[in-house]
Amino acid sequence: MVEIEIAAHAGACYGVERALAMARAAARDAEGPVRTLGPLIHNPLVVDELAREGVSVAQSVSTADAGTLILRTHGVVPRLVEQARAQGLHVLDATCPYVKRAHAAARRLVRQGFQLLVVGEAGHPEVEGILGAAGDGARVVSRLADLDGIDLAERIGVVVQTTQTIERLQQITDALLARAREVCVVNTICAATTDRQRAARALAEREDVMIVIGGKNSGNTRRLAEISAASCPKTHHIEDVAELESSWFYGARLVGITAGASTPAAHIDRAVAVIGGMCDSA
Amino acid sequence: MVEIEIAAHAGACYGVERALAMARAAARDAEGPVRTLGPLIHNPLVVDELAREGVSVAQSVSTADAGTLILRTHGVVPRLVEQARAQGLHVLDATCPYVKRAHAAARRLVRQGFQLLVVGEAGHPEVEGILGAAGDGARVVSRLADLDGIDLAERIGVVVQTTQTIERLQQITDALLARAREVCVVNTICAATTDRQRAARALAEREDVMIVIGGKNSGNTRRLAEISAASCPKTHHIEDVAELESSWFYGARLVGITAGASTPAAHIDRAVAVIGGMCDSA
Ligand code: F3S
Ligand code: F3S
Repeated sequence: MVEIEIAAHAGACYGVERALAMARAAARDAEGPVRTLGPLIHNPLVVDELAREGVSVAQSVSTADAGTLILRTHGVVPRLVEQARAQGLHVLDATCPYVKRAHAAARRLVRQGFQLLVVGEAGHPEVEGILGAAGDGARVVSRLADLDGIDLAERIGVVVQTTQTIERLQQITDALLARAREVCVVNTICAATTDRQRAARALAEREDVMIVIGGKNSGNTRRLAEISAASCPKTHHIEDVAELESSWFYGARLVGITAGASTPAAHIDRAVAVIGGMCDSA
Repeated sequence: MVEIEIAAHAGACYGVERALAMARAAARDAEGPVRTLGPLIHNPLVVDELAREGVSVAQSVSTADAGTLILRTHGVVPRLVEQARAQGLHVLDATCPYVKRAHAAARRLVRQGFQLLVVGEAGHPEVEGILGAAGDGARVVSRLADLDGIDLAERIGVVVQTTQTIERLQQITDALLARAREVCVVNTICAATTDRQRAARALAEREDVMIVIGGKNSGNTRRLAEISAASCPKTHHIEDVAELESSWFYGARLVGITAGASTPAAHIDRAVAVIGGMCDSA
């Protein structure tokens, strides 16, 4: 009899569940077309489901002629919101509250006279959104070396892209402590990412097989697969239950499942059902 | 011909020079007895010099019956200042401005609603002074383990005893970043200590003999001697030029000199003269 166990923290995070609910409610209630600015989340399966429910994808603000435009969980620069409203669109802001928290912290630190640094991936939409909230003068620090190109003030304020690691934040803060008089860090890392990684690591250590569910284009899901594979060689990253193969479970007694932050709970439930069926008939 | 070189940063720091000048001015100008609350600096030679100039040592506020009471460079708790004034003493505050900066930063962070932590040696007068400025609720963190005994708030403010190392500050800040939402660090470490250590290390690497001048009871001078000895085995820590021995300089071509933060420039000049004389007559 195979035992299937789901990681303590797995699947859609609070912000993704919230954005999905907002999108589905808009599809039901809103007048005119309902579009998300770019795919709502990094999960092609879910994007297709939403399309069938009447939520399509606008690649840019200008291509959305009318109706409702939904902003994704990682937020956008204020300029795009103004542009959308100027086009007469109804803007539905599904930016995750944890991302908004970084915007608010950035604005506050700038108000308090700090030079603002955003620890994160240069060019990432979430980081662009934080820079947008912070205004001119804010700079991105992706790696320690980036500090050398910045004329550091005496008083430095730091906020962090939600998916960054605490180690990266500590490394950059240490360097700032040696170069500035005052360093004020608002740690806006979202625990969801680290919780899922810790839970995947713990589960993979005791499982015969690990199944990681989520978009192949989802960075955090790929990271979960790497972490699982490090201690459970039989790790498979799938986007769709159709990819599951019974041979993966031959001789297996413990099967672990985890999923990225863009994978709805329903997808996990489906995988449990399919794997259960495969193992029973094995 | 022996070459004598003084370290790039050596001898009395800004705060000590300032306190000495204030004490000597008071001895000249003040009415009534002039006392320092405890030895003005960790250098018995200097304390004797001051005594000959009319500046004696009061071991406590209560033992100072009248006249002027001078507060040392590392500052005191506000309660002692009030007590001295209540006794009718004229209080001359020679607290180093860099120490006062830590007091001001502590008060500001408390005003801004941060829980205040002081990184430093529990019980050290300077740390007591900062705690006094910060008021109730402020706690001392000497080692990482101390954090476990503190009920950490979401928002933590940190100031540092001037003589702490940047490595200690970074270590404790890293731990706080993983446990609190916002960490605001005002780095009140005084560069004088690190500058002297760096200069001693650089000098000792190329000298045949190193002479380190300063109180045997002075922590920072002992630290300089340790650093020098690490790369120049012939390192001698002296308090008084009378301790110099010509045999130390036999065969030496390069003689380096450094001195702790409580050693007046005059003491360095005297050592240079005596060593020069010894080497000429060798
Ligand atoms: S920032 Fe929000 S979108 Fe998810 S990973 Fe964290 S809850
Ligand atoms: S704190 Fe002040 S007393 Fe000297 S070592 Fe720094 S200048």
